[in-house]
Amino acid sequence: TLAAPAIAQTNPRITWRLASSFPKSLDTIYGAADDLYNFVSEATDGNFVIQPFAAGEIVGALQVHDAVTDGTVEAAHTAGYYFWGKDPTFALGCAVPFSLSSRGMNAFMYEGGGNELYNEFLAQYKIIAFPGGNSGTQMGGWFRREINTVDDLRGLKMRIGGFAGKVLEQLGLVPQQIAGGDIYQALERGTIDAAEWIGPYDDEKLGFVKVAPYYYAPGVWEGGPMWHFYFNTDAYGALPENYKSVLRTACDAANVRMLSKYDYKNPTAIKTLVGQGAQLRWFSKDVMDAMFDAANRTYEEYSATNTHFANMWGAIKDFRSEYYTWAQIADYNYDTYMMIKQNEGAL
Amino acid sequence: TLAAPAIAQTNPRITWRLASSFPKSLDTIYGAADDLYNFVSEATDGNFVIQPFAAGEIVGALQVHDAVTDGTVEAAHTAGYYFWGKDPTFALGCAVPFSLSSRGMNAFMYEGGGNELYNEFLAQYKIIAFPGGNSGTQMGGWFRREINTVDDLRGLKMRIGGFAGKVLEQLGLVPQQIAGGDIYQALERGTIDAAEWIGPYDDEKLGFVKVAPYYYAPGVWEGGPMWHFYFNTDAYGALPENYKSVLRTACDAANVRMLSKYDYKNPTAIKTLVGQGAQLRWFSKDVMDAMFDAANRTYEEYSATNTHFANMWGAIKDFRSEYYTWAQIADYNYDTYMMIKQNEGAL
Repeated sequence: TLAAPAIAQTNPRITWRLASSFPKSLDTIYGAADDLYNFVSEATDGNFVIQPFAAGEIVGALQVHDAVTDGTVEAAHTAGYYFWGKDPTFALGCAVPFSLSSRGMNAFMYEGGGNELYNEFLAQYKIIAFPGGNSGTQMGGWFRREINTVDDLRGLKMRIGGFAGKVLEQLGLVPQQIAGGDIYQALERGTIDAAEWIGPYDDEKLGFVKVAPYYYAPGVWEGGPMWHFYFNTDAYGALPENYKSVLRTACDAANVRMLSKYDYKNPTAIKTLVGQGAQLRWFSKDVMDAMFDAANRTYEEYSATNTHFANMWGAIKDFRSEYYTWAQIADYNYDTYMMIKQNEGAL
Repeated sequence: TLAAPAIAQTNPRITWRLASSFPKSLDTIYGAADDLYNFVSEATDGNFVIQPFAAGEIVGALQVHDAVTDGTVEAAHTAGYYFWGKDPTFALGCAVPFSLSSRGMNAFMYEGGGNELYNEFLAQYKIIAFPGGNSGTQMGGWFRREINTVDDLRGLKMRIGGFAGKVLEQLGLVPQQIAGGDIYQALERGTIDAAEWIGPYDDEKLGFVKVAPYYYAPGVWEGGPMWHFYFNTDAYGALPENYKSVLRTACDAANVRMLSKYDYKNPTAIKTLVGQGAQLRWFSKDVMDAMFDAANRTYEEYSATNTHFANMWGAIKDFRSEYYTWAQIADYNYDTYMMIKQNEGAL
């Protein structure tokens, strides 16, 4: 049986652990790790197992990149912007204010050399990453009072993530870091005035509508946030070529599936939330312009001293301009017409 | 070596042929079949081979579904609306006028039970299908003269695909079936007044801008056209479970990759076309409303007599209304703002 060793070699038994930055209650996000597990396990007849663990089971949500770097786990599923404090380039693969939408991110990362730039940066951490999900544009968050002018942001205590918080600080906003499970109480007690979380499907679960009814759109700091699967480069490099390919293809599939889940679940959730009293509001152009200018100051600041950041942000910026020229021609006019018909009650 | 037969069984050598409905010159669309071949071959160490053949190499572009049904080939990559004449339900998995955008189609097909409905219909043809690409909203086509009113459509000889042609016929338009390679000459000679093809990247190659400079958006008959991989149900059913999973996951990956290619290539192409003299125009609301009403008459007509059509169109319609309620809140306002900044020269 000459062939046996060669065949056996192609499907070796390999078991990896994946540390998710998310709790299982965020089923749509956490689900991407389940999808990866299922796709890879099925494709290899159960020989290549990537067992997912929720945040805190092996390491905390914000330690998953370190765990991949030092080989505590072979894999993570995370949002790169969690690690902006270590280097803001982490955030560029995920979401920064006024970056690309979900389709734009896919185009940039898959076709525009974006993922290669991201992996050049991540190599120093012994991480290789592939896109692993998107939520579409998130909501701007829940506010206890209306935001009508840029001045209304001054002194506003808002639960908002790191990179976006740094940008909004320039407008006098006071960013707060609060874990998901503690946001409701902080809003209820008035310890904070506002909180951004994700979008209708996930926000509904936490009940914010009862304590901060003004629900603002759009979440300009997360126009198309991209989750990633991070893999330890040694572990990835040691895989047989067929497993590497299975892994990459499974990441692509998990990526498209997460956005589809959000696009299917959010429509129902937004209706429920409005039924529960959510007051939809939109940031004014003045408010968004002030945020936009603040974001650009941040990008200039980082680009001046951080080569990886400068290269990757420069590439995003170049493509962003091209993308938003084309996007406004066919898709945008189609969507606009369909929305008009929806609002006419004709769909 | 007890294990050898069991292991060997999991990676059997299987060679399939895939008939594409497309020529290799449409590299973005045809490329999805190459992607499937690569993903599946790599994942199985070259043991499961799905060799793609361009339109005409085994069967013609419009015969690929029959070739899958009768087992001439095990697989096809096609646009379901080509077969609308056999049953209009074929088109619902692909594109019909005023249906879902690309993200909406993914959400409906993957999460909303759409692909299950499509496969219930396709089972009678011994076909099982999985999503296999999208172009985003296509352009409305190239016109030798401007279309300002619904009356301007009357008597207009336009190269346009079957299902959309049937809808537009109601407005006095005279649909023409002309192969891609013959469109340019027909426009140049004035045999036809207009032609729809795909979008900037593919349209540029055929040079229409020189003979029909008015380039209309949006392509309301293809808001989010979805290509599919069709597989013969017997061939699919005979696959080991791991190959079935590899195949499904590879289809997902090919699906997200095709849209990313278009979203990356179209921005450059539209700039080139405008540089070559393309005059961008938009269908007026009156014109689109007339097309919308005509489409609805067609859907009612088919739904009255075709159960598969009625079920699947009903499901699309229900989700379409939900989708376009949510879509206008976060993503749309984000995109709108980014487009305004682009047009201000600020991106």
